[in-house]
Amino acid sequence: MADQELLFAPLGGAGEFGLNLNLYGLDGQWLMVDLGISFADETLPGAEIILPDPGFIAERREDLCGLILTHAHEDHFGAVPYLWQRLRCPIWCTRFTAALLRRKLEEVDLRDVPVHVIEPGERFQVGPFDCCLLRVTHSIPEAHNLALRTPLGNLLHTGDWKLDPAPLLGSLTATDDLEAFGREGVLAMIGDSTNILTPGTSGSEAEVRDSLLELIGPMRRRVVLTTFASNVARLDTAMKVAQAVGREVAVVGRSMRRMIDAAREVGYLEDMPLLLDERSAAELPRERILWLATGSQGESRAALARIATGNHPSVRLEPEDVVIFSSKIIPGNERVIYGLHNLLVSRGIEVITQEDHFVHVSGHPCRDEVEQMYRWIKPRISIPVHGEARHLHEHAALARSLGVPEPVQVRNGDLVRLAPGRAEVVDQVPTGRLVIENDELIEAGDDLFRARRRLMAHGTVLVGLVLDRYGTLLASPNLSAFGAVDLDRVPGLRDAVMADIEEAIEALDDDAATNDERIREAGRVAVRRAFRLARDKRPIIEIQITRLDREDLDALMDDAGAA
Amino acid sequence: MADQELLFAPLGGAGEFGLNLNLYGLDGQWLMVDLGISFADETLPGAEIILPDPGFIAERREDLCGLILTHAHEDHFGAVPYLWQRLRCPIWCTRFTAALLRRKLEEVDLRDVPVHVIEPGERFQVGPFDCCLLRVTHSIPEAHNLALRTPLGNLLHTGDWKLDPAPLLGSLTATDDLEAFGREGVLAMIGDSTNILTPGTSGSEAEVRDSLLELIGPMRRRVVLTTFASNVARLDTAMKVAQAVGREVAVVGRSMRRMIDAAREVGYLEDMPLLLDERSAAELPRERILWLATGSQGESRAALARIATGNHPSVRLEPEDVVIFSSKIIPGNERVIYGLHNLLVSRGIEVITQEDHFVHVSGHPCRDEVEQMYRWIKPRISIPVHGEARHLHEHAALARSLGVPEPVQVRNGDLVRLAPGRAEVVDQVPTGRLVIENDELIEAGDDLFRARRRLMAHGTVLVGLVLDRYGTLLASPNLSAFGAVDLDRVPGLRDAVMADIEEAIEALDDDAATNDERIREAGRVAVRRAFRLARDKRPIIEIQITRLDREDLDALMDDAGAA
Repeated sequence: MADQELLFAPLGGAGEFGLNLNLYGLDGQWLMVDLGISFADETLPGAEIILPDPGFIAERREDLCGLILTHAHEDHFGAVPYLWQRLRCPIWCTRFTAALLRRKLEEVDLRDVPVHVIEPGERFQVGPFDCCLLRVTHSIPEAHNLALRTPLGNLLHTGDWKLDPAPLLGSLTATDDLEAFGREGVLAMIGDSTNILTPGTSGSEAEVRDSLLELIGPMRRRVVLTTFASNVARLDTAMKVAQAVGREVAVVGRSMRRMIDAAREVGYLEDMPLLLDERSAAELPRERILWLATGSQGESRAALARIATGNHPSVRLEPEDVVIFSSKIIPGNERVIYGLHNLLVSRGIEVITQEDHFVHVSGHPCRDEVEQMYRWIKPRISIPVHGEARHLHEHAALARSLGVPEPVQVRNGDLVRLAPGRAEVVDQVPTGRLVIENDELIEAGDDLFRARRRLMAHGTVLVGLVLDRYGTLLASPNLSAFGAVDLDRVPGLRDAVMADIEEAIEALDDDAATNDERIREAGRVAVRRAFRLARDKRPIIEIQITRLDREDLDALMDDAGAA
Repeated sequence: MADQELLFAPLGGAGEFGLNLNLYGLDGQWLMVDLGISFADETLPGAEIILPDPGFIAERREDLCGLILTHAHEDHFGAVPYLWQRLRCPIWCTRFTAALLRRKLEEVDLRDVPVHVIEPGERFQVGPFDCCLLRVTHSIPEAHNLALRTPLGNLLHTGDWKLDPAPLLGSLTATDDLEAFGREGVLAMIGDSTNILTPGTSGSEAEVRDSLLELIGPMRRRVVLTTFASNVARLDTAMKVAQAVGREVAVVGRSMRRMIDAAREVGYLEDMPLLLDERSAAELPRERILWLATGSQGESRAALARIATGNHPSVRLEPEDVVIFSSKIIPGNERVIYGLHNLLVSRGIEVITQEDHFVHVSGHPCRDEVEQMYRWIKPRISIPVHGEARHLHEHAALARSLGVPEPVQVRNGDLVRLAPGRAEVVDQVPTGRLVIENDELIEAGDDLFRARRRLMAHGTVLVGLVLDRYGTLLASPNLSAFGAVDLDRVPGLRDAVMADIEEAIEALDDDAATNDERIREAGRVAVRRAFRLARDKRPIIEIQITRLDREDLDALMDDAGAA
């Protein structure tokens, strides 16, 4: 990296993946902003979470001056416990994020991570960067825009944000500071594109509170409300509504309890009601309790899934009880969540969602809010991040329409030179995804997943052959099949297949019979033919060959006989 | 089945699955209405289409007087080619459906299926049922409500429908006939619930045509329009719009060409423009062509997916060309379709969807239309079908609110007595799903899918052991792993695991060493330990044992040596 260049590289949140790892470079030094996880989809069977591959910066970690966390959502800070050992850099964040981070680090026994707790609005230096976190509203307390001042220009990295005029918990957006930063002159804004396809504004938590009050007020049955555990304002809303309508509150779901603890530790939720113990809550009359439950995305091990299936130890619902999904459906979770709705409805339980009632607002800015931000910041360059390609494209088009001279579309791995000169992609840096598998980090491109994708569609057939050195079968072939063909559905199939394999091996000429690879090939062909596999069926057919030598055997068997 | 009972049983479309097989019973005889397929989701890895299990009625096929097809959507008639052999009953449908059915039956060499082509409005007798198909609008030509007249009461089975005031192709809904049927008195309406959660009306094809004309008119680039192949009115719309704006039309995608052929065969699309050959179309200037393409649901082998990846032989798009998704996203397809959008957008191609422009209307009735139908039909009983539990529940609630005395919520397999007496579920009949696997029909509950679900998450480890009768290993264990652990990632892992297995086998006492089951158990434990598998990792660990006897070996080896 040449001196006197201001660089930016997104390694996770631009164009795909939806996990955040951003790098800013100046004077041969790097600053990292956010380090998040995401959830694996069906293209990585068996994987649960995915992480950005930090390889590029890990190899340069002596030049990495620090990591700034804009807020405590998993897709922005969830990878720290897994990847910090590879980076070993100091971390800056505000109190609430630090409280949650400390809990996470303790779980993995990381106790020597230097975490600097800063105040919003405070200037702090990380390497060559003069940094300042500016308060914004979002769906978690303490979200921030990051203002970076450098000799080559000022930058605003928005993180996740919205303009909630009445967030009810935490601070309002520091609009004065944003306007002032804009007046200083901003070279580039690197910004959230999540809701760029949605016109208007994202709405306010206060409106949700009013709506929930009106909705729950007349109810005379049990109410379960589920939302994202990190949406502390929504938890506060649910508790305030419960108090107002004369209901007690109990919380089911560890992540929600942990979030409440962390929030209280740093001074939020101070006036919240006393929460009831699960067992006591279960004894209350139906109309006197509001349950707060995890599992709004249909997570199979979360409280709500267990409630829906009737397997929750404390929360037992009856017909006409109500479940409120105070949340959105994250794309990809539709089937699972609708499955939960169906399960509840078929038990006579009323399901209320964002689709039929006003019970949720998004934490990301819709188009009007994004436009407002551009009016404040007036950047020369706009780099849309936090979104899929279709969002980034639309965001760049909007920026252009608002008169931003240089909207730049990037994708993960692009290295952008912001200054000097026109902004442009000058290089590619290595990027990728990691997966936690059997407690280890492996690459998402690992053969493991290729094998699983094949196994899930085609299964596997295993043939064991014991041969002497000349290729004579010393025993009948051993045959197993999983997920490929049911050997026992057709009577006689197993014997027929074994006979076919035996025949194929015996038919080999002497050359082939002494060549393991040719035997394997003959075995695979015999298996395909014997099972009459259709052309599009491609099970993994494994032919294991054990060669036995007469001399070795004699020795072994003499030993065994003697024993 | 007792005489003088009027019965109804949904075997596929009520509460889950989304494929249709409905049975009506009277006087010991059965009438089947529709027989559809659906697409497998990730719970049935490797499967593509699913069919309703016709076992219950196949066992009684001498009492099955016939099958009536309301229309030619796959989820209503797609299973006929696969299941007719088990039913062998006559089929009634109108001309367009018959034209498509004949093509399907020819593909599977079924040439002796008796298909009675009837006219809408015509009365025809199937067993004890006096039947009549009444024209309704939908997203395919020739959709019908089925009116059944019986001595125990009249029934209206709606099939799929909407009230399109200007469908542009095919007939208007036969509202007079529906009103007249209502005045005759209707015992039960068995009706479509797909859009019951959507207020208002579903809109008209004419509105889509106007909107597309306005949208495409000013475009000066290539336009690709994708929609459901069976939406012949939409194909007509696209062609008319192309003509109006001076573009030629070419069709890519077999299913769309087949649909156009069938439509023309029975008299639709008579005034359509001449379609261009793919190659000629590719040579036209960008602003002179409109491509009609299959693949609106992101199907990986359809034309649009190949266009998006740049692998289509004829359709080559450049930046600023436009792809219009004149279709909805079927739930569950979000990720794949958004993936296509992203791919196109990242190539600079403009993507237009229902989310940002008015380019599609649904073929199912929204709430206002459903209410209108109840006002015409005034049934005593309402049985919501065609939907998941949440839709059926909402539909039943709407029917109740409209004064229907007996809304009945059913799910697949419920046998409902409609008359005499109050409607009630009186029994359960066997129901289930079949899957086509390796060209055979197997049950969706087959172990094959259980094995695949486990393989996709955990993979498999295969160990081959060759032992003598006393349990002495005659060779090193053979070891393979797929999708479980990468044996070659950690140097020495393979040898270490083999040594551990060997050790575990050798440590067995004499009793265990002669017992295959105990050896397998020891092998599995050794594999888990050697790989340090986390508790939640559950690969299929298969231990194949070959036992060799000294006498057999001697004989074999003598033969081999002599050969």
